[in-house]
Amino acid sequence: MSTAGQVIRCKAAVAWEAGKPLSIEEVEVAPPQKHEVRIKILFTALCHTDVYYWECKGYTPLFPRILGHEASGIVESVGEGVNDLKPGDHVLPIFTGECKECRHCLSEESNNMCELLRINCDRGVMLADGKTRFSINGKPIYHFVGTSTFSQYTVVHVGQVAKISPTAPLDKVCPISCGICTGFGATVNVAKPKKGQTVAVFGLGAVGLAVSARVCGASRIIAVDVNPRRFEEAKRFGITEFVNPKDYDKPVQEVIVEMTGGGVDRSVECTGSVQAMISAFECVHDGWGVCVLVGVPKKDDAFKTHPMNLLSERTLKGAFYGNYKPRTDIPMVVDKYLNKELGLDMDKFITHSVPFADINKAFDYMLQGIGLRCMIHLDA
Amino acid sequence: MSTAGQVIRCKAAVAWEAGKPLSIEEVEVAPPQKHEVRIKILFTALCHTDVYYWECKGYTPLFPRILGHEASGIVESVGEGVNDLKPGDHVLPIFTGECKECRHCLSEESNNMCELLRINCDRGVMLADGKTRFSINGKPIYHFVGTSTFSQYTVVHVGQVAKISPTAPLDKVCPISCGICTGFGATVNVAKPKKGQTVAVFGLGAVGLAVSARVCGASRIIAVDVNPRRFEEAKRFGITEFVNPKDYDKPVQEVIVEMTGGGVDRSVECTGSVQAMISAFECVHDGWGVCVLVGVPKKDDAFKTHPMNLLSERTLKGAFYGNYKPRTDIPMVVDKYLNKELGLDMDKFITHSVPFADINKAFDYMLQGIGLRCMIHLDA
Repeated sequence: MSTAGQVIRCKAAVAWEAGKPLSIEEVEVAPPQKHEVRIKILFTALCHTDVYYWECKGYTPLFPRILGHEASGIVESVGEGVNDLKPGDHVLPIFTGECKECRHCLSEESNNMCELLRINCDRGVMLADGKTRFSINGKPIYHFVGTSTFSQYTVVHVGQVAKISPTAPLDKVCPISCGICTGFGATVNVAKPKKGQTVAVFGLGAVGLAVSARVCGASRIIAVDVNPRRFEEAKRFGITEFVNPKDYDKPVQEVIVEMTGGGVDRSVECTGSVQAMISAFECVHDGWGVCVLVGVPKKDDAFKTHPMNLLSERTLKGAFYGNYKPRTDIPMVVDKYLNKELGLDMDKFITHSVPFADINKAFDYMLQGIGLRCMIHLDA
Repeated sequence: MSTAGQVIRCKAAVAWEAGKPLSIEEVEVAPPQKHEVRIKILFTALCHTDVYYWECKGYTPLFPRILGHEASGIVESVGEGVNDLKPGDHVLPIFTGECKECRHCLSEESNNMCELLRINCDRGVMLADGKTRFSINGKPIYHFVGTSTFSQYTVVHVGQVAKISPTAPLDKVCPISCGICTGFGATVNVAKPKKGQTVAVFGLGAVGLAVSARVCGASRIIAVDVNPRRFEEAKRFGITEFVNPKDYDKPVQEVIVEMTGGGVDRSVECTGSVQAMISAFECVHDGWGVCVLVGVPKKDDAFKTHPMNLLSERTLKGAFYGNYKPRTDIPMVVDKYLNKELGLDMDKFITHSVPFADINKAFDYMLQGIGLRCMIHLDA
């Protein structure tokens, strides 16, 4: 029996207030409006950005809210004006969108800074009518980055939905919707190390490990993390050397410059710590070094360096979602994964797995720095 | 009668102490040593870097010294091991070198950060023996950036000498040895605006005017300078709009973002003011904007911006001498000028002309912000 056009009652993990464990509730999910899609979420994982907005330190609180953005699922129904998706399509909801009409989407030079659907962490409602599609006994529950995947059903703007091959295993490709592409794209699309070059990676979470400079032929990959527990795990990802800044009295950029006789060819920063960003920039070689920033900074952070570090011909760039266009590029990334052309083993990233009822365990793992991705099974 | 191998007595403008007018003296110029070239300087111009090291505010004082680095001349004699230059060759001495042997010179990715001959403003002696080639009655007079062109004869390392076409008019091509290439190269080699794009140029000295974004097909060129006197002059260089930061209560980057509906496509900073550098970066469009820093900062400056400005896919780069390789590229730049392929009218840059005896007038013009380049005729 079709549920299209009807309110769906299902389970969702609701954040009622900052920093308190999520609570599994029965929520009402309204039908998709114009240019919206209702998706049955099968798998979701936890990413640091969820934790930031759950902890809500320095951010505007917006509760009750359904968090979650790294996920995979199947289209349940579509709203008016949605022509390129239909019920049954396998999809990845993406935290940032591609309207295909604005000057960013149409620009040859821009990647994914869509004017209409660019990530917005502060908006808790849908664009069409400024309202939520979630409620509990009529009380609205806010959305998060337009995806809110900690729910068995969610409503997403069509511009934030990547249609992927129906043969893709939805659990394995789930991290492509955020962490994997963020790190992998920062390397292959932005840093672009050349064969035999040296790359430094700051932060050994899933994003940092997805940097996968080996895919580009880098020969020396130096990882920087303050958590030595990460080092054993990281060896399986092609990292060749490790530096723990806590082991040194001098700034880690100086350590790396000494280790490499002048600096690395490329660096990718995946922590969000502004100090790590500065170190990542200052450890690249003069004359040709490129530093790519990926981690999300705090509100009042300031990136600071002596301009001479730039004048000696270094390049500093930021990357967002690996500079992939969500609807145009992501289906292709999934295809490459299926054809084993991506060079990434997704199983290595999924270190834990919990049923939906245990979603708070995923938060515990992340807060304790245990493992990489914890796959949350919404149907289990 | 050949002067090779002999000490030459000639006129030089000596800076005896910081900020005091130069004094024309008779100096002794020793013969070139191994890998050195003695050049008869015919034309030299004044650049801001000379003024900085003459004023010596915040720099280590090194006096008496012969300043000067933007110049043109003819080889008088060569030292041991110099095979690719001979007496009579027309040359431009360059303030930074290209040894053709170090890993920067051999790197595919590096431009001109030569390990042996990279610009060194603090060294006042020649590399071969750590001594000066200038003296007055036996008392050594220090060199400046290895060129010291405020002298009728000077001695320069062969790696800092670009051999140019003998048909090039030495007065016209003189500014190619520094200012022109610095601004022009920052645009054509680094910022690379596309046809129809908008470019902001900070600073309307010779370097800023040589940015010449029009050559690349930019349609809107917005110039920023605190000296409105520059604006009339700049119109002849293809600048289409002017912004004087002093006319606004808000930061100039906000003014430019408003003028352009989101920011310029490229910006090039040619002032050396760290505030201008920050403005130049923050006025480029998110998604694709590229800012190129060219101006030389002060010793304790800090470039500061919110990392989110980078994460929204802006690029920040520095350029040095327009990323040209001094010996490999400069002869070709001169050839392009001779073939009228450069798109630059050198006559527009040379606004004043003085005989050598009046060199201090060139300092006055620059300190008062009058004109662009003052050509100093060393034989007049």
